[in-house]
Amino acid sequence: MSLPLFDSFLSTAAMDQAFSDGHLVQAMLDFEAALSRAQAAEGLIPSTALPAIVAACRAEHYDLQALAASSRTAGSLAIPLVQTLKARVAQADPQAAAYVHWGSTSQDVIDTGMVLVTRAALGLLDATLAATTTAVLALAHQHLHTPVLARTLMQPAQVTALGLKFAQWAAPLCRSRHRLREAAARGLALQLGGAVGTLSMMDGHGAAVTQRMADELHLHAPIAPWHTQRDEWVRLGLEVAVLTGGLGKIATDLALMAQAEVGELAEPSAPGRGGSTAMAHKRNPVSCMTALAAAARTPHRAAALLATMPQAHERGLGNWQAELAEWPGLFTSAHGAVQALCDALGGLQVHPARMRQNIEALRGSVFTEPGFDAQAAAAPAAAMAERLLAALQADLAALPGAPW
Amino acid sequence: MSLPLFDSFLSTAAMDQAFSDGHLVQAMLDFEAALSRAQAAEGLIPSTALPAIVAACRAEHYDLQALAASSRTAGSLAIPLVQTLKARVAQADPQAAAYVHWGSTSQDVIDTGMVLVTRAALGLLDATLAATTTAVLALAHQHLHTPVLARTLMQPAQVTALGLKFAQWAAPLCRSRHRLREAAARGLALQLGGAVGTLSMMDGHGAAVTQRMADELHLHAPIAPWHTQRDEWVRLGLEVAVLTGGLGKIATDLALMAQAEVGELAEPSAPGRGGSTAMAHKRNPVSCMTALAAAARTPHRAAALLATMPQAHERGLGNWQAELAEWPGLFTSAHGAVQALCDALGGLQVHPARMRQNIEALRGSVFTEPGFDAQAAAAPAAAMAERLLAALQADLAALPGAPW
Amino acid sequence: MSLPLFDSFLSTAAMDQAFSDGHLVQAMLDFEAALSRAQAAEGLIPSTALPAIVAACRAEHYDLQALAASSRTAGSLAIPLVQTLKARVAQADPQAAAYVHWGSTSQDVIDTGMVLVTRAALGLLDATLAATTTAVLALAHQHLHTPVLARTLMQPAQVTALGLKFAQWAAPLCRSRHRLREAAARGLALQLGGAVGTLSMMDGHGAAVTQRMADELHLHAPIAPWHTQRDEWVRLGLEVAVLTGGLGKIATDLALMAQAEVGELAEPSAPGRGGSTAMAHKRNPVSCMTALAAAARTPHRAAALLATMPQAHERGLGNWQAELAEWPGLFTSAHGAVQALCDALGGLQVHPARMRQNIEALRGSVFTEPGFDAQAAAAPAAAMAERLLAALQADLAALPGAPW
Amino acid sequence: MSLPLFDSFLSTAAMDQAFSDGHLVQAMLDFEAALSRAQAAEGLIPSTALPAIVAACRAEHYDLQALAASSRTAGSLAIPLVQTLKARVAQADPQAAAYVHWGSTSQDVIDTGMVLVTRAALGLLDATLAATTTAVLALAHQHLHTPVLARTLMQPAQVTALGLKFAQWAAPLCRSRHRLREAAARGLALQLGGAVGTLSMMDGHGAAVTQRMADELHLHAPIAPWHTQRDEWVRLGLEVAVLTGGLGKIATDLALMAQAEVGELAEPSAPGRGGSTAMAHKRNPVSCMTALAAAARTPHRAAALLATMPQAHERGLGNWQAELAEWPGLFTSAHGAVQALCDALGGLQVHPARMRQNIEALRGSVFTEPGFDAQAAAAPAAAMAERLLAALQADLAALPGAPW
Repeated sequence: MSLPLFDSFLSTAAMDQAFSDGHLVQAMLDFEAALSRAQAAEGLIPSTALPAIVAACRAEHYDLQALAASSRTAGSLAIPLVQTLKARVAQADPQAAAYVHWGSTSQDVIDTGMVLVTRAALGLLDATLAATTTAVLALAHQHLHTPVLARTLMQPAQVTALGLKFAQWAAPLCRSRHRLREAAARGLALQLGGAVGTLSMMDGHGAAVTQRMADELHLHAPIAPWHTQRDEWVRLGLEVAVLTGGLGKIATDLALMAQAEVGELAEPSAPGRGGSTAMAHKRNPVSCMTALAAAARTPHRAAALLATMPQAHERGLGNWQAELAEWPGLFTSAHGAVQALCDALGGLQVHPARMRQNIEALRGSVFTEPGFDAQAAAAPAAAMAERLLAALQADLAALPGAPW
Repeated sequence: MSLPLFDSFLSTAAMDQAFSDGHLVQAMLDFEAALSRAQAAEGLIPSTALPAIVAACRAEHYDLQALAASSRTAGSLAIPLVQTLKARVAQADPQAAAYVHWGSTSQDVIDTGMVLVTRAALGLLDATLAATTTAVLALAHQHLHTPVLARTLMQPAQVTALGLKFAQWAAPLCRSRHRLREAAARGLALQLGGAVGTLSMMDGHGAAVTQRMADELHLHAPIAPWHTQRDEWVRLGLEVAVLTGGLGKIATDLALMAQAEVGELAEPSAPGRGGSTAMAHKRNPVSCMTALAAAARTPHRAAALLATMPQAHERGLGNWQAELAEWPGLFTSAHGAVQALCDALGGLQVHPARMRQNIEALRGSVFTEPGFDAQAAAAPAAAMAERLLAALQADLAALPGAPW
Repeated sequence: MSLPLFDSFLSTAAMDQAFSDGHLVQAMLDFEAALSRAQAAEGLIPSTALPAIVAACRAEHYDLQALAASSRTAGSLAIPLVQTLKARVAQADPQAAAYVHWGSTSQDVIDTGMVLVTRAALGLLDATLAATTTAVLALAHQHLHTPVLARTLMQPAQVTALGLKFAQWAAPLCRSRHRLREAAARGLALQLGGAVGTLSMMDGHGAAVTQRMADELHLHAPIAPWHTQRDEWVRLGLEVAVLTGGLGKIATDLALMAQAEVGELAEPSAPGRGGSTAMAHKRNPVSCMTALAAAARTPHRAAALLATMPQAHERGLGNWQAELAEWPGLFTSAHGAVQALCDALGGLQVHPARMRQNIEALRGSVFTEPGFDAQAAAAPAAAMAERLLAALQADLAALPGAPW
Repeated sequence: MSLPLFDSFLSTAAMDQAFSDGHLVQAMLDFEAALSRAQAAEGLIPSTALPAIVAACRAEHYDLQALAASSRTAGSLAIPLVQTLKARVAQADPQAAAYVHWGSTSQDVIDTGMVLVTRAALGLLDATLAATTTAVLALAHQHLHTPVLARTLMQPAQVTALGLKFAQWAAPLCRSRHRLREAAARGLALQLGGAVGTLSMMDGHGAAVTQRMADELHLHAPIAPWHTQRDEWVRLGLEVAVLTGGLGKIATDLALMAQAEVGELAEPSAPGRGGSTAMAHKRNPVSCMTALAAAARTPHRAAALLATMPQAHERGLGNWQAELAEWPGLFTSAHGAVQALCDALGGLQVHPARMRQNIEALRGSVFTEPGFDAQAAAAPAAAMAERLLAALQADLAALPGAPW
């Protein structure tokens, strides 16, 4: 695991692993292998160099702690990695070593490495999001007509249908499933530009090498590198931030409805879940906690991405490095949040009688019509929920294929 | 003008005006008029009430300072506005007054009002962005083959073509023109839900009223209100933030290249532009200043939008209000920035001889090849620039119609 | 008023006024008058120039809208102001005009202007904070022993004393009163450096002029200008942000305890306060709304201050201007929040019976001890509250004099 | 090491270690041992329980990966740790186990654990800051009179003295050394409140236990716990953020002056330092890179601290956990930055001839006085530098003892 203790319990083991040092280094080596293959195919480097290069591109050959230490001096992860890779290739085939990383640059391999681990991270995120969305939609259907208090500015307002409340929770999640695909199709792009983003050493084969590598790695092939034009990449990160905001909204409502005095919903209980070191009776809403922590942290990470966009000239000094360092936190938080809500919503305890009771307690104050009937009052909301659910399900059915 | 002095000089008069109190109040009144028309058409309110309501929906009838004062007590802009509107209607037609704002709620009129002024703001932004993009593309064509130092981590690296540098500046702007349209098509949506977002008083005509109003106001008609599901709206704001990041990148490069010791580019000079109270010789890069100020401020405004997403239940307490208050700043900053760069790039002073001289100064240190030729060294970059420019122009030619 | 509608209702008229264009311009003119007086006293400029200069330093002589328009071209507020001031002085005394703004620079007058209006703003803030603190302390004494549920992670935990809850609300406010004074004593410093911060035109009298001006304006006299060393100024802004966080905590608790199902506290009701356009029965917690909006916005403004600190060389390009533009929002939000809570806490409705009832509802689940007695359970908390209140009052009694 | 690769190269091994899982767990166990000792001294638990408890309070006995996994389910680090601690104590002395963590709560041990590792982190930070400050002050003395261009808004303005430039770099660092001590004296406070912050199980000995523990752990003893009143703690984090802003300013200037076309300063060169995978000639300013990355990231982390302040009731749901997770990043970034600048400034290459040359190049344009003499022009700045340096050194001599 790569995240420290105080952070890892707010994420998932799977996402922590997705951004682990081993995965990142392997992704960087995948870039190097793909580069060499594409250049051999284009005749830029001899095919005979390939076996030694490809064989050396396995993360298990590298000492990650030594890489970390050298990268502090070098100011880059790529420099010690490429040096060690060259040395390893040279042992197997001294002539091949010269063709390692040919015509490329640190930022090519680092950015593409981060793109590749991000794609895997998006796969994880989308899978859990799909399960969460399904759970919310099921709840909406199941409780379509249940009357529940609608509350505005934290005060009781009128009656709505629980089905609408749940359908509204689901709506941003469904939209996120679409938008993450859109943003990924654009943002998961190969980075290849060479020293200053001109592919000057590719001898006119730059576009062809780019296309071959993108095909092999299943990435978008950009017309030009995006070393300091990172808008599509930033948009992808912002989509994750928007998703996290929607998860935070669900957690906010759930935590409020799970208050003892409200008692309308509760997180599922299980041994060891949500306990307290001081109070045996406590059943803490730990899923809400995780999702709310993510929603509290993520806006600042999104701001960091935006703040680092004005990168100087052909490679940023400090802001590029800052952007990459902030990036994984968007995903570890988001996956912690969506997994937590998946757990909570999959076994959600719903208390319609308590909802009814909270409404009835306001008869005469909020609900002053003679003959006020909660079920009837919920009908317009239920009708709207039905329309909304139909639209959301149609949307999900039209979900395009994902790049992960 | 609505912005204070220390803020307004970083924006434009036009954008300041777009979000002025008068425009916002008129947009809120446009909502009210459209609501009444749609409800009359659906038979929910008598058509006879329309003339008085519509006639009263003119911002010039209202005392904006009195509204501001009352809204502090009421905790909402809409409450004093709707009360005053009802009173005005009652003077003309006492029976019509009961039908004002029928079945709607504060958030409907405030959100839709902000959507309408935002649409106008987007029109301004896109028009200036179009001019700026055209100016950068023209520069790229004009200087396609000019050799210039590429710099990475603020140090000279290799030679690139000025055309590629400019084309790369243009690329995010072109993408922003597309993405702003996409985000606007989704985010410029009518807000209509009534007290708790169920359209409960519309007697089954809620969807029809929504569609009629959206048609009249030329807005997207959502299936359900988005009172506390603001992801599409937030995405629109984030698109503006991404654009501002791209503008900040241009300003960063330009400010660096305009340093006296570099001397490769300069902002146009004009009387009163970029002077100093202390130094007569000074010619400050005030366009860069404005764009960099926008890029420094905007990420935090974007974070605020994301941070306010977890809004409780059916209407947020504090975070909804905070989101709206932060919103206009995204646009006033962005328009200040894009207008400033439009001014700078339209009259940009380009010094190819100085670029050549900065390259030649490194012959023997950076450029050690015997017979090193800057023009030849720029050729791969120029070729890439040509491909990129062709793609950007094709993209712009395919720009869809805008909702503004 | 200077703030736009959607923003002004979250602030106060008084604070809006404190940062109004007129006040800022007057403060800048106060700097100019003080500069001339100090320079005349030091013999740097002729005393005969003083009457014309001092007479011209009245904000009512200037057209604020024209200043705003010119500042857009000039890239600075100071340039058109100083030009207009010189012209006005020249009309009265042609020879005096040359001595206006002698040896100073735009940043000197703008920064000192902002320092002066900030001092007034701090006076307003502290006065309202004092009243709010007094109100909370009075509540704590009044309800010292009242049992109330303590809640952790939004779930009932044990019994505490309402007096402790209120005393804990007060503690950060009391600390803020001290810390704001400390930060103001350091951060409210004269800015005077001349063109590049060396006081090069002061002919060896720079330190003396600085001291004279600081004495006249009642500001801290720094050894050297702080044009691009803004840490003390930023600390002052951050203190306001910390205060706002503490206000947000009070509002969070109050909004939660004011929920209908909890019913332990309520904001005072008054005509026109917290109504709804759609629901006659609604009594919205608008004070909480205002404080929570401030708490949602302020962290991003604080981040903007910190982000603008790395200002280049002797005057920042863009980030200085951005910092000043973000600055007033810290104060308008904070004063809106503290005034709102002052209103709410001054007339707070406290329902001890409901608190007792919420405790009793958990007898057998949370409170399982036979003979559980809420009053006895609250005793340790009340004892702690007494100690805390004594300490807070001793702290307040030791409050040093304020620089406002 | 605990930080992932893409993050660790921007920090230091020492600071990474300071916040490592092992150190945090040991600090939490130190809290537990101190609690038991203090309670035994007060007669709240039998002294006979101490040996088994104290012996078990060694981090090496615990499986950190298992703790991480359990903490995900439990929603807290403390729950599995306290459970495992109790089990371990029970093996040695079954009767002692019941006295482990007596009357305390998760937040007590977690917060105090974080306070203890933070104190060690501050010690590291201050030591490196001291060395960096010394290096800058030495540079200022050494180059006191050297003329160098002053630049405003990124354009040449007038002549200053390099000694003043360096002294101004030093000023915020000196202030940070004072302020960090002030903030630490207040913010490094024991957390002890028990389940809901009332010390209800301490049988009237709560204040005494608090004082004993604070004495043993060398922490501030607060009158009441600060579970959800975290202003002093947040202020401490903000001080680190302010320091990082000052470091970013130095790095900004240094990176600009190290540009090839300016050539006035350069980072020291060493084997493996600042190389490039693509360009053998490159000597990248990697110290600036690290400091600028820190300055880009830190404002958002500071915003997160402020944003999490409104914590509900007696323990926050999500925002407390978010605050702690964001906290260490402030220190790892800051230490990376200050160590990087310490390295750079310790061996800084200063090129006075180039500074003179850059001034002379502007003779006739910027410097139009006949007989303009750079050395004479620098004199007022050098005089100011002397005054500033004297003041800074007096300040440093008055540095109070540190709590680390």
